[in-house]
Amino acid sequence: MPVKRKIAIVGASGYSGEELVGLLLRHPGAEIACLTSRSEAGRALDSVFPRFRGLPQADTIRFVNSGTAEIAASGAEFAFLALPHGLAAEFAVPLLQAGLRVIDLSADFRLRDASVYAEFYGHAHPAPDLLPTAAYGLPEFRRDEIRRAALVAAPGCYPTSILVPLVPLLRRRLLKPASITITALSGVSGAGRKADISLLFAECNESARVYGAPKHRHLSEIEQELSDAAGETVRVTFTPHLIPVTRGMLATIYAAPEEGIQPEAIETAWREQFAPEPFVRRVEGDRFPTMADVARTNFIDLAWRHDARTGRVILFSAQDNLMKGASGQAVQCFNAMIGAAETTGLL
Amino acid sequence: MPVKRKIAIVGASGYSGEELVGLLLRHPGAEIACLTSRSEAGRALDSVFPRFRGLPQADTIRFVNSGTAEIAASGAEFAFLALPHGLAAEFAVPLLQAGLRVIDLSADFRLRDASVYAEFYGHAHPAPDLLPTAAYGLPEFRRDEIRRAALVAAPGCYPTSILVPLVPLLRRRLLKPASITITALSGVSGAGRKADISLLFAECNESARVYGAPKHRHLSEIEQELSDAAGETVRVTFTPHLIPVTRGMLATIYAAPEEGIQPEAIETAWREQFAPEPFVRRVEGDRFPTMADVARTNFIDLAWRHDARTGRVILFSAQDNLMKGASGQAVQCFNAMIGAAETTGLL
Amino acid sequence: MPVKRKIAIVGASGYSGEELVGLLLRHPGAEIACLTSRSEAGRALDSVFPRFRGLPQADTIRFVNSGTAEIAASGAEFAFLALPHGLAAEFAVPLLQAGLRVIDLSADFRLRDASVYAEFYGHAHPAPDLLPTAAYGLPEFRRDEIRRAALVAAPGCYPTSILVPLVPLLRRRLLKPASITITALSGVSGAGRKADISLLFAECNESARVYGAPKHRHLSEIEQELSDAAGETVRVTFTPHLIPVTRGMLATIYAAPEEGIQPEAIETAWREQFAPEPFVRRVEGDRFPTMADVARTNFIDLAWRHDARTGRVILFSAQDNLMKGASGQAVQCFNAMIGAAETTGLL
Amino acid sequence: MPVKRKIAIVGASGYSGEELVGLLLRHPGAEIACLTSRSEAGRALDSVFPRFRGLPQADTIRFVNSGTAEIAASGAEFAFLALPHGLAAEFAVPLLQAGLRVIDLSADFRLRDASVYAEFYGHAHPAPDLLPTAAYGLPEFRRDEIRRAALVAAPGCYPTSILVPLVPLLRRRLLKPASITITALSGVSGAGRKADISLLFAECNESARVYGAPKHRHLSEIEQELSDAAGETVRVTFTPHLIPVTRGMLATIYAAPEEGIQPEAIETAWREQFAPEPFVRRVEGDRFPTMADVARTNFIDLAWRHDARTGRVILFSAQDNLMKGASGQAVQCFNAMIGAAETTGLL
Repeated sequence: MPVKRKIAIVGASGYSGEELVGLLLRHPGAEIACLTSRSEAGRALDSVFPRFRGLPQADTIRFVNSGTAEIAASGAEFAFLALPHGLAAEFAVPLLQAGLRVIDLSADFRLRDASVYAEFYGHAHPAPDLLPTAAYGLPEFRRDEIRRAALVAAPGCYPTSILVPLVPLLRRRLLKPASITITALSGVSGAGRKADISLLFAECNESARVYGAPKHRHLSEIEQELSDAAGETVRVTFTPHLIPVTRGMLATIYAAPEEGIQPEAIETAWREQFAPEPFVRRVEGDRFPTMADVARTNFIDLAWRHDARTGRVILFSAQDNLMKGASGQAVQCFNAMIGAAETTGLL
Repeated sequence: MPVKRKIAIVGASGYSGEELVGLLLRHPGAEIACLTSRSEAGRALDSVFPRFRGLPQADTIRFVNSGTAEIAASGAEFAFLALPHGLAAEFAVPLLQAGLRVIDLSADFRLRDASVYAEFYGHAHPAPDLLPTAAYGLPEFRRDEIRRAALVAAPGCYPTSILVPLVPLLRRRLLKPASITITALSGVSGAGRKADISLLFAECNESARVYGAPKHRHLSEIEQELSDAAGETVRVTFTPHLIPVTRGMLATIYAAPEEGIQPEAIETAWREQFAPEPFVRRVEGDRFPTMADVARTNFIDLAWRHDARTGRVILFSAQDNLMKGASGQAVQCFNAMIGAAETTGLL
Repeated sequence: MPVKRKIAIVGASGYSGEELVGLLLRHPGAEIACLTSRSEAGRALDSVFPRFRGLPQADTIRFVNSGTAEIAASGAEFAFLALPHGLAAEFAVPLLQAGLRVIDLSADFRLRDASVYAEFYGHAHPAPDLLPTAAYGLPEFRRDEIRRAALVAAPGCYPTSILVPLVPLLRRRLLKPASITITALSGVSGAGRKADISLLFAECNESARVYGAPKHRHLSEIEQELSDAAGETVRVTFTPHLIPVTRGMLATIYAAPEEGIQPEAIETAWREQFAPEPFVRRVEGDRFPTMADVARTNFIDLAWRHDARTGRVILFSAQDNLMKGASGQAVQCFNAMIGAAETTGLL
Repeated sequence: MPVKRKIAIVGASGYSGEELVGLLLRHPGAEIACLTSRSEAGRALDSVFPRFRGLPQADTIRFVNSGTAEIAASGAEFAFLALPHGLAAEFAVPLLQAGLRVIDLSADFRLRDASVYAEFYGHAHPAPDLLPTAAYGLPEFRRDEIRRAALVAAPGCYPTSILVPLVPLLRRRLLKPASITITALSGVSGAGRKADISLLFAECNESARVYGAPKHRHLSEIEQELSDAAGETVRVTFTPHLIPVTRGMLATIYAAPEEGIQPEAIETAWREQFAPEPFVRRVEGDRFPTMADVARTNFIDLAWRHDARTGRVILFSAQDNLMKGASGQAVQCFNAMIGAAETTGLL
């Protein structure tokens, strides 16, 4: 069993914060030294999240409304930031200066190019100097950087569901980058715990809708990573859909193989890339990935089909948007950073 | 108010049959002369479908297990067939011979080419001579044929959600046919009322899954109609998804404009085509079509976006799979066949 | 076809307001002369509620932010108030003075005793003089009063689901009033369209919860009407539950028969009371009322069982909380007030 | 860490079987030696339940269609029976004879009186001699018996949700037994994974319904245990409701206190009884138990209210029907039987 590292969870009142707390409460290599929330400060963890009552420490850990100095003073070596975009950077800078290693679940440090950030987020990046230092927190592709990084920018559900299947194929030049179109289906928790009429049960239930097309913010990091894999600038068409499930993400990706490439090369590429990966599963036979199969796990399930009639291939991925698409991913990065097995606390 | 025509509903125990009964019970131009179901024969309509209790006639109409001779003897001028694929043809042939006009909700008569039928359905067509006589029951494009036809093959939810947005654009050569990829999300009622483990609440809820890719049976008619519109053979990539809603269909269609075509030409084409159509609605502003907006209506909602970064256009449609995608469509065809306003009984 | 009466809908942006608009748009005896909403003023009806696009008048009727003088000046003879509790009274007083007949969907005028109002609502009634003039808008029991009334206080979902089964039994002294306990299950739309974290999809889905026990506000009117029926003061135990459906209400009511009463007397009482009622249905055989059977209808379905082992009877009712439990009920009252068949626009 | 005991899971293809497999795969004191299913024999565990892929052993454990001799020959010391009622007894008898300890999730051995079994199940009990030997598997009340038992009959969701709150109160004579009425809301997985039209997504979604009232089979064991606690024969009124959630159970129980009993005595009784219990939680303040708070845990949450206006008390419980209401309970019993902490593998 690994040594327990003291960790802080900053901004833990949303869905991914709650998920993170649940994972880290049970994690054999972590001890929650500090739990912050502006809105819940002063309350015990199990009062804010009754589902944790009865778990060890759930009644003794209290939310605090701490600034970064107090977080550092808690003795935490690691800080997980589950904050809105923009606010994360404000915390990351002083925490890094205080010597903590930071795992940020927001999009603040996922882009390497501050001008792309400005284009997609509508304002200048608050800490552009940090951008080149951050590791993009997808352990399947960036393990070595993550292990060494002081700042890890863990990608969210859309990038993860798209990059995991595509990156190995673009690295091997199996697909025509310009041919890629992507449909993604997201559960409603992906939109966060916020008082918004459009997220009410009676608005989402018995419906499905598109949003954020054609230029969703997360396209910026998706294209950054796809371009990096392809060795050329990649632009993709991406359409997010909201469907009435609480948790889950399903991506369906259409692409044309490069000339002379047999579709079976996908199988080989995935096998090469993912054979040692504990959280990437190949769905076999005539089955397809489903949200149910990955619910409340850190797995991402993959499958592909060849549409012989049009020559295209179709890639499928499924994951839990709060696990591999958010908090599970962050814990997997943490495991890599502390030298533990990446599955620690996640199986 | 139109004269009441006697109609028969054959095989009315499934979801589209039930919907059809609900529409025709209230239709000012229809009188249900015969209602058949092998499994429910002998029972009153309101005993089989308690939701209809209290509506006029719901307690006096009884299900019968009638053959085609008895259906014809009921005095029905029109027969709606809500039967499984294959069985519909067995009923259609003698009913047509007996002089009834037939509106078939199955796929049995939607293809013009019996060899395509054999390819997609795995057996020879049972009545190939009838294929050239059937009108494809999409009034928006085939109104004149439908008005005159003895046999109307009303298309189902997938073809309708795809053909309505695309046909006007392919007719005007605005899109490259080979560029089309289609994602469709379907409610679970689209799979029918059948005792199948995979359709249980506990299997479908909190999940989403792909099925039938890459060669779903309904591709055959989708491509037939798209090819007809384009004036050339069209092959598309199509992926159906099952999501946890009872009713609804959402289609997201990706395509590249033909050279020199401005995306705004889509707007013009749709306006020309659909201005007089009572059931095709253009969703405006920054809204997208949603399942909720069309639920329990015969409307199909359309929108499009230009993805300037990749040059593609994205088309969106939403409809209720049991209404415009099945029974509402059949009633719209019936209205055309009897010379009534197509909205009769449908607003 | 009845003469069209000009009506105003005041506060039409919530769920029951939207439902009311949908019913009155299609009502053969109503013409919407005025539609008010503070938040949506200036927008066309079909822009606020896209589901109404394509219906007659949906593009020409606009929301206004009108005071009562302007509402009266619209020529409306009837005003439907779909306003929050408290605000309704502010509109009702001047509208009545201006000569309109008012159908109020709020709880403001459902109590006859201002002190009970003060006890349950926590403040003095704003217009106690009007209380004795208001008709309690349950046509099944108060038809004559409703027909004559200037002010009708249409009861909501909880009272309706409880009073319809119980009132005839208490009037006939079949049940011991002190023995009554009531469980009610409500769909989430019953809580209104408001930006409240507890009503988010991700909070309500895959859960169920009690709220408002043991002294829900609507107990006040439930007990008023039960006491009136029983001829003695009745106090009941009532527990509302929120379940993850958008629409629907199911009530399960436990009671002990009075000494010497056979359970079959329930059947007789209901038959006597409800035989002429178009919207009260007796569910027969081994079936129970379900939310699905009454969804989007104005019916309320009833059944009962005798628990021979304990001597109790159990009563069941199901209705759509936005129809018979709100807007359908209001339209049924309107029909009674204008002398039309109560089913007009509601079947 | 406890020694690993070899266990068999018999009939593991339903929902509670699947849940049991998930728990025991991760249990530090269990090793799955044998996994049987008639329908899935020959397939690997992770092929039948893709959600388990990637977990240790999920690819090497295969389903077998074994009789009891082979199960015994597998070396299993414990057999969990996740079989339909009736079939469980057929397996239990020879497995006990072969020296295994048996934890039965069915209702076959929960009654002590074979004549009550015959009354409620409609046929003679197949192994009446075993009935007095079986421990009723609710550790909160029968811990000592369970520890020693060769045969444990783990109660299901309805009994657990009702007995946990009520037994301590009846033991202390706080409530009038004849006053008890119970409403329970169950998720659809409680009905099992069976191909039944009434369990289809499109039948259950957007609905709720009563079933099995007034004499549900599980009343027999509920009343047996309540009578045992009260020291007199107890008969209760019980109404199960099916609501559209996959997992979860909520019970709302109405009762009158015995003369002279203050409602606060409930608090004291629960505190005395449950203070040492790891899985019984008291929901405090103005919150109520919810399905969400206990989902996928073995906790059962309790609360109560005093309805001062009628003198009744209302008790509330929530649990996950597949965990504390089925498989978690069975594992808790197993932990007691092997002398491990009862929370082993369950937190």
